Amino acid sequence: MFRTHTNGELTLQNLDQNVTLTGWVQTIRDKGFMIWIDLRDRYGITQLVFDADRSSAELLDNAKKLGREFVIQVNGKVIERQSKNPKIPTGEIEILVENLTILNESQLPPFTIEDETDGGEELRMKYRYLDIRRNPVKDKLIFRHKMAQKVRNYLSDNGFIEVETPVLIKSTPEGARDFVVPSRMNPGQFYALPQSPQTFKQLLMIGGMDRYFQIVKCFRDEDLRADRQPEFTQIDCEMAFVEQEDVLEIFEGMTATLLKDIAGNDFGKFPRMTFADAMKKYGNDKPDIRFGMEFVEVNELVKGKDFKIFDDSELVVGINVEGCADYTRKQIDELIDWVKRPQIGASGMVWIKYQNDGVVTSSVNKFYSEEDLQRVAAAFNAKPGDLILLMSGNENKVRTQLSALRMELGNRLGLRNPKEFAPLWVIDFPLLEWDEESGRYHAMHHPFTSPKPEDLELIHTEPGKVRANAYDLVLNGNEIGGGSVRIFDKDLQSRMFDLLGFTKEEAEAQFGFLMNAFRYGAPPHAGLAFGFDRLVAILDGNEVIRDYIAFPKNNSGRDVMIDAPSPIADLQLEELALNVDIKE
Amino acid sequence: MFRTHTNGELTLQNLDQNVTLTGWVQTIRDKGFMIWIDLRDRYGITQLVFDADRSSAELLDNAKKLGREFVIQVNGKVIERQSKNPKIPTGEIEILVENLTILNESQLPPFTIEDETDGGEELRMKYRYLDIRRNPVKDKLIFRHKMAQKVRNYLSDNGFIEVETPVLIKSTPEGARDFVVPSRMNPGQFYALPQSPQTFKQLLMIGGMDRYFQIVKCFRDEDLRADRQPEFTQIDCEMAFVEQEDVLEIFEGMTATLLKDIAGNDFGKFPRMTFADAMKKYGNDKPDIRFGMEFVEVNELVKGKDFKIFDDSELVVGINVEGCADYTRKQIDELIDWVKRPQIGASGMVWIKYQNDGVVTSSVNKFYSEEDLQRVAAAFNAKPGDLILLMSGNENKVRTQLSALRMELGNRLGLRNPKEFAPLWVIDFPLLEWDEESGRYHAMHHPFTSPKPEDLELIHTEPGKVRANAYDLVLNGNEIGGGSVRIFDKDLQSRMFDLLGFTKEEAEAQFGFLMNAFRYGAPPHAGLAFGFDRLVAILDGNEVIRDYIAFPKNNSGRDVMIDAPSPIADLQLEELALNVDIKE
Repeated sequence: MFRTHTNGELTLQNLDQNVTLTGWVQTIRDKGFMIWIDLRDRYGITQLVFDADRSSAELLDNAKKLGREFVIQVNGKVIERQSKNPKIPTGEIEILVENLTILNESQLPPFTIEDETDGGEELRMKYRYLDIRRNPVKDKLIFRHKMAQKVRNYLSDNGFIEVETPVLIKSTPEGARDFVVPSRMNPGQFYALPQSPQTFKQLLMIGGMDRYFQIVKCFRDEDLRADRQPEFTQIDCEMAFVEQEDVLEIFEGMTATLLKDIAGNDFGKFPRMTFADAMKKYGNDKPDIRFGMEFVEVNELVKGKDFKIFDDSELVVGINVEGCADYTRKQIDELIDWVKRPQIGASGMVWIKYQNDGVVTSSVNKFYSEEDLQRVAAAFNAKPGDLILLMSGNENKVRTQLSALRMELGNRLGLRNPKEFAPLWVIDFPLLEWDEESGRYHAMHHPFTSPKPEDLELIHTEPGKVRANAYDLVLNGNEIGGGSVRIFDKDLQSRMFDLLGFTKEEAEAQFGFLMNAFRYGAPPHAGLAFGFDRLVAILDGNEVIRDYIAFPKNNSGRDVMIDAPSPIADLQLEELALNVDIKE
Repeated sequence: MFRTHTNGELTLQNLDQNVTLTGWVQTIRDKGFMIWIDLRDRYGITQLVFDADRSSAELLDNAKKLGREFVIQVNGKVIERQSKNPKIPTGEIEILVENLTILNESQLPPFTIEDETDGGEELRMKYRYLDIRRNPVKDKLIFRHKMAQKVRNYLSDNGFIEVETPVLIKSTPEGARDFVVPSRMNPGQFYALPQSPQTFKQLLMIGGMDRYFQIVKCFRDEDLRADRQPEFTQIDCEMAFVEQEDVLEIFEGMTATLLKDIAGNDFGKFPRMTFADAMKKYGNDKPDIRFGMEFVEVNELVKGKDFKIFDDSELVVGINVEGCADYTRKQIDELIDWVKRPQIGASGMVWIKYQNDGVVTSSVNKFYSEEDLQRVAAAFNAKPGDLILLMSGNENKVRTQLSALRMELGNRLGLRNPKEFAPLWVIDFPLLEWDEESGRYHAMHHPFTSPKPEDLELIHTEPGKVRANAYDLVLNGNEIGGGSVRIFDKDLQSRMFDLLGFTKEEAEAQFGFLMNAFRYGAPPHAGLAFGFDRLVAILDGNEVIRDYIAFPKNNSGRDVMIDAPSPIADLQLEELALNVDIKE
């Protein structure tokens, strides 16, 4: 071992001890006759001192040769500091250095290794190994590890077995695009990388494993959006002989354990909301319930007053922005412009102010009497000082637009405190959703999700109304997990494939082995998967996942540090029986 | 929840309780008026009883409809058994069934779901989900999980951080073949799947992570031999500011923790042996030291006696097979045939018997007096009743041949007890090994392994003699882990690439990012990786790894259950800018 202690542990308790430390030179303060160095490692910072009075001339000379990020080993005595630093655990001591060894030199790094760095995103990614030396990045990776350990221990303690499912599997055209892997031993054939271990975990239930989990890499070849990664990590779980309630209970327990560890408080029973209610109250299937601003629908109060825009709208719906009646015209216009941006796509917005003087006024005074407006304000439980914003249009679209506005205002008004946690189960998702493009229904969760038995008879008459035993766990406005009770009856599964427009042949080719497995005593089962990258980020009070991934890819799916992907040798292509054929 | 209890927990303590159980019908004994069913789940077996006296006629009728592997739910009372089964925890009770629900039927499975099944390997793999229901397979997967948990907790407790390194990385022609993944977003470019996270863990050390581990899937596109899998799992570790001794200590501790858990006893300090000694004493760099039969070299004793075969041999070496002097001529001839098989390739073998009557005789009495033979016997510490077997030839070849014979005799004589554990560190591996085919030196471990400083000066004169700070952990004759102290100096790393025949351009193209990272303060570091599949198998007293993998591939790299790899759609190929081009 090159050291006797780390840089995070020495205190006055260690006074006068002779210690050996290693690490990176963080900062150098050279006063000529005295040099102070902050020595950094994963565990902290320790101040080193070299001093013309107490150190040899040679040692002082050597210390003067050091540069930022040099790797050194020092030996010396723990002494009490003159000016203490109460902000760090080692702030009461320093090391009077007696021996200095340079273990490795360093070029000047391309950005500063500080909590607030001068390095831009791209530079930091290219030199990610230097970026990881920075506390904010390092701490996030350590936090991720701790969460993974807690998850594994919780699930293990609850009888779950972590089973590794294969990474080289079979491509299925369903869902997002697969990454594929050409097989040299089977020319012209390909493996696929799993988008999730879904079928394998169901096979494990059929195999009697009873309770399965895995923290596992999954892969999706999507056109990347910001904060989407081609490889991502799931906490994947499945249980046999259970109903929806059992799954919610176990994973509520798991999430509460993590939250308690972070936030310190007990979260009791997580609230639950149906999908229908979530859409109606928040316009969103993953509502952030840290703040109110619930939707109020006012069709009855505003229609038939000759305001054509509202009269022609399927839905008029609004939110009460409490205490914001004093917004200036300019502020409100800016909000209107915000909802009119193409990303939101609203055609306009109506405002009603409940002034502090008790007067209710609006941008549509021409059509509505103050009495009319009072009635609307009452529907919102508005008080003097509140601002009501109304939007209108197609039911689904206007909800989505108003939801975006609600979240934006939540951010602007500081209602989304990242250190406050509001978990929520959203349940009773629709089984199917209509896809305009293909003109048919798609599985909202996936084709193995069980319909609610009581809705089963609607399946051929009003398939859109069939609810599923499907559930999402939402935390602070983010879906962190989702799952469903699975179909375990081969006939029902077969009907489901019909409904989703699979031919018998397609269903057989893609899921034949699962359908076959259903013939040999499949138990009732249900499961859930968490997006681990996102879960960790949100638990840590962030919404950007990239810094919780050690070596992330950029938005073009590239690792700019190792420069991947890259061309491969002709011999490799030949062995794989492949030609590259780039069409211009 | 479909059940109140599992099938492994009810005892006389639960007498008269009303319970609900679920599981699979393991066996049915139908005596007409009474039916006994063994109900199975992951946790055990519970006996159910249906009885014409105590059950309704309808219930008895329904029970008669059950078949093997049906999934059922039963409700009934815990009663004391007439004839108890002391072999299972629930053997004192049975359930007098009151309600029976068939949750799912089952076709007759293609093989019996018993500890000893009638299913062959291929059938079991095709229906792996049924195979997993069998205790021997299920228990192996659970054992694997427990070992993984113990490893994670041990390493976590010792300050290691599990960091997930990327799966989509860059192809490097060095070493075994990579699996590659075409990038749709970057046509003509490919990711590669990692053969190990070697460079990433070194970058994490440069990034100050200090102690890293990961239980991680790795990939190697090799022509498969028996018991080789294209995807396999490693426990991958790296530490900064350490020397070889620190690595050995940590991972000796980890292994001892696992062994203590399994075998119950403390293993103390693991023995160590240099590579040179292992080759000399056992002809093998992973000796099984559960038994002796150490090699004895007898050049001085047997040469110059006109026995031309020995006179012409570089090395005459043998083993003492204790207590086997009574082997018949036939038995010995069979052993001679065994070493002459092409897999071993020996040209012959000489035997010397130290008979129980004290006479020493041999197959080469023509050349050696009894006194000569006595001297040889003495060199082996042979006693009356022992059999000495001598082989001769080229030093390296004869050692390998004799090692194979030693292991074979160890097996035949029952000296390799799978429940006995003999860990061993093999250290001081050569840095380089000569490759006949390419006519140059290759890195024995990998190109990042540090030479021993004291051997550094031999690097240009006698490179084959340079020893590395490289070590293997051997358990019962299997290499379960291996690692090295790494080079952390860019100039030495550069010299190493020269020595291995890389041009500057090749080194830059393949390892440029690592070489670049070395410029920014790389700390001294060292690491180790365990083959987790093999480790688990050996800890469980097995050497076949396949059953410790939930869904293994066969020797052609196929998953016969899901039928992968398989052709993909033309559209997929087109999007990837690829043509399949199979040359006949």
